[in-house]
Amino acid sequence: MRIHELPTPALCVDIDALRRNIERMARWFDDRPSSLRPHLKAHKTPAIARLQAEAGCSGFTCATVREAEVMADHGFDDLLVANEVLDPAKLRRLSELSDRAHVTLAVDSAYGAALLRDVEVDVLVDVNVGLPRCGVPVEGVVDVARAVSDAGRRVVGVMGYEGHAMAMPDPAARAETARDSMGQLLEAADRLRADGFEVEVVSAGGTGTYDVTGAIEGVTEVQAGSYALMDTAYARYGLPFEEALRCLTTVLSVQGQIAVLDGGLKALATDHGDPELPGGTPAVVFFLSDEHTTLATSEGFDRRPGDRMWLRPSHVDPTVNLHEVLYAISDDEVVDTWPVAARGYR
Amino acid sequence: MRIHELPTPALCVDIDALRRNIERMARWFDDRPSSLRPHLKAHKTPAIARLQAEAGCSGFTCATVREAEVMADHGFDDLLVANEVLDPAKLRRLSELSDRAHVTLAVDSAYGAALLRDVEVDVLVDVNVGLPRCGVPVEGVVDVARAVSDAGRRVVGVMGYEGHAMAMPDPAARAETARDSMGQLLEAADRLRADGFEVEVVSAGGTGTYDVTGAIEGVTEVQAGSYALMDTAYARYGLPFEEALRCLTTVLSVQGQIAVLDGGLKALATDHGDPELPGGTPAVVFFLSDEHTTLATSEGFDRRPGDRMWLRPSHVDPTVNLHEVLYAISDDEVVDTWPVAARGYR
Repeated sequence: MRIHELPTPALCVDIDALRRNIERMARWFDDRPSSLRPHLKAHKTPAIARLQAEAGCSGFTCATVREAEVMADHGFDDLLVANEVLDPAKLRRLSELSDRAHVTLAVDSAYGAALLRDVEVDVLVDVNVGLPRCGVPVEGVVDVARAVSDAGRRVVGVMGYEGHAMAMPDPAARAETARDSMGQLLEAADRLRADGFEVEVVSAGGTGTYDVTGAIEGVTEVQAGSYALMDTAYARYGLPFEEALRCLTTVLSVQGQIAVLDGGLKALATDHGDPELPGGTPAVVFFLSDEHTTLATSEGFDRRPGDRMWLRPSHVDPTVNLHEVLYAISDDEVVDTWPVAARGYR
Repeated sequence: MRIHELPTPALCVDIDALRRNIERMARWFDDRPSSLRPHLKAHKTPAIARLQAEAGCSGFTCATVREAEVMADHGFDDLLVANEVLDPAKLRRLSELSDRAHVTLAVDSAYGAALLRDVEVDVLVDVNVGLPRCGVPVEGVVDVARAVSDAGRRVVGVMGYEGHAMAMPDPAARAETARDSMGQLLEAADRLRADGFEVEVVSAGGTGTYDVTGAIEGVTEVQAGSYALMDTAYARYGLPFEEALRCLTTVLSVQGQIAVLDGGLKALATDHGDPELPGGTPAVVFFLSDEHTTLATSEGFDRRPGDRMWLRPSHVDPTVNLHEVLYAISDDEVVDTWPVAARGYR
């Protein structure tokens, strides 16, 4: 099938750019003290995880129980659920996974630890390293770890996400903030060791900081996800990864200086800003509605109803989450259709 | 099942509030010159459409071919696709629907009209009544209608969406803008009649303007959708509809003044602003991540990890679109689970 035959809106992956991104990241870790544990939440697509595994990685990171289940269904057997899970039914589902995968779970409270009495998972203590989200402060890690032991589970290390650094466009500020966060995470690891815990895993990082976090002695793995597909937000950071993700749309209407495309809020996430047109297009994105992107056009805009146009997503994770499938493309050919199988919460 | 047993995040519908909203809107049209054609795009849920049909309506409005297909699968046989469809494969799918439903399609260009030669649909000429999106300007309607006739299809009327009025919080400004838009739409209808077309349908409106648009002589139907479930954006407008939609979350983490809930950007749309907490909660929504809502808490916040909390969605359509199912609740009981069957584009 050719690209122009796809029903639109169609979220497409340039498989050549994807492979280069995956290879580039995997090779970066070849001579580093840490390893790569790609985050599934960015793409939720087992076919892409397969490419990441082939390039080399130490297992996968998941954000939800559903993601872990789908990955186990596809034969991936080393899964970190890098998130607190407190729902008894979801904990039972995680426990059922332990027959076919080694599952590690993040815990940041004594309450969460106590729920694990019958759940066969290993545990990373989730440490707050500056991002105001989950994670216990450094001074609380020993209490959480002891509660995990009391529940009969094994603490294997710590994790901490320096997401506030990820939001900093200036590379120097981003690196300094990430280093500061990793200082806190390594202090948390030291406190656990001083209390008699064996800390095998120190897990952190993301696409914006992998080259800082992953180079720090003591950090054992990096949870990067966006690098594989990228988006306009990360593209501004000067990272060595290409935008492999793009949304194919059809021009529905052209009236005066207004043109309308057939993908909107239900096809493209806008929490990191509106999607953008490819460079050089004589038009800008004006606003999005549920099923439309309205463009304001300038001189030289020559698209007509029925023409196809690309939009560049601004935030990879919630954009992919909107689509049932990704179309893998190479030049003008659709070479594969990949289910975004790990969507949803059920 | 009780509400607290639901896996979270869980998008819930207060079925009692939903029924009151549906009944209130249906009864408003009892003594009006226009009728209600509810828009499926707000909820994409056949079970809710069934309640709307039982309360009385003149058929349904759809935004996508997929929505029309799912509605036809559920036995609904009068469907307006209020959007331009230019994709040949999707037009073939619409044509296949004509065996089991009467399908009317919006067209705003001669190009779009010419594609309908073998597609068994009736046509509304889509008129731009002020919103910079699809729709031909009033002065172009006759040309589009003639192109539809040339393709062998029947023009049955006009439609125009006064979406720019919908964005105006001041009721007087909203009403004035809606009336101005309807003036343009009725002029378009007159131009078609003067050219020999029979204009049976003049379709417009939405939840923010139904009581203005639906009361104007000559407007035959109103395409309102959000009124059934509502959201925080429409709740500010003083409309006679209740917020029936809410997202159940679990408190994952509480550290100092920060609390974290387990629903984020993949469970709640933010294009109309962040979701909000129920009134009186001593906390505010700070920011959303893919799978988390971080709250900043104030004095008196007493929730603990494992507790459930409600979030009020800010925009109904793209929020419902994120969920596989809606849980119908009444008081503390989960009384039904409704598939959001019309999601997706395939």
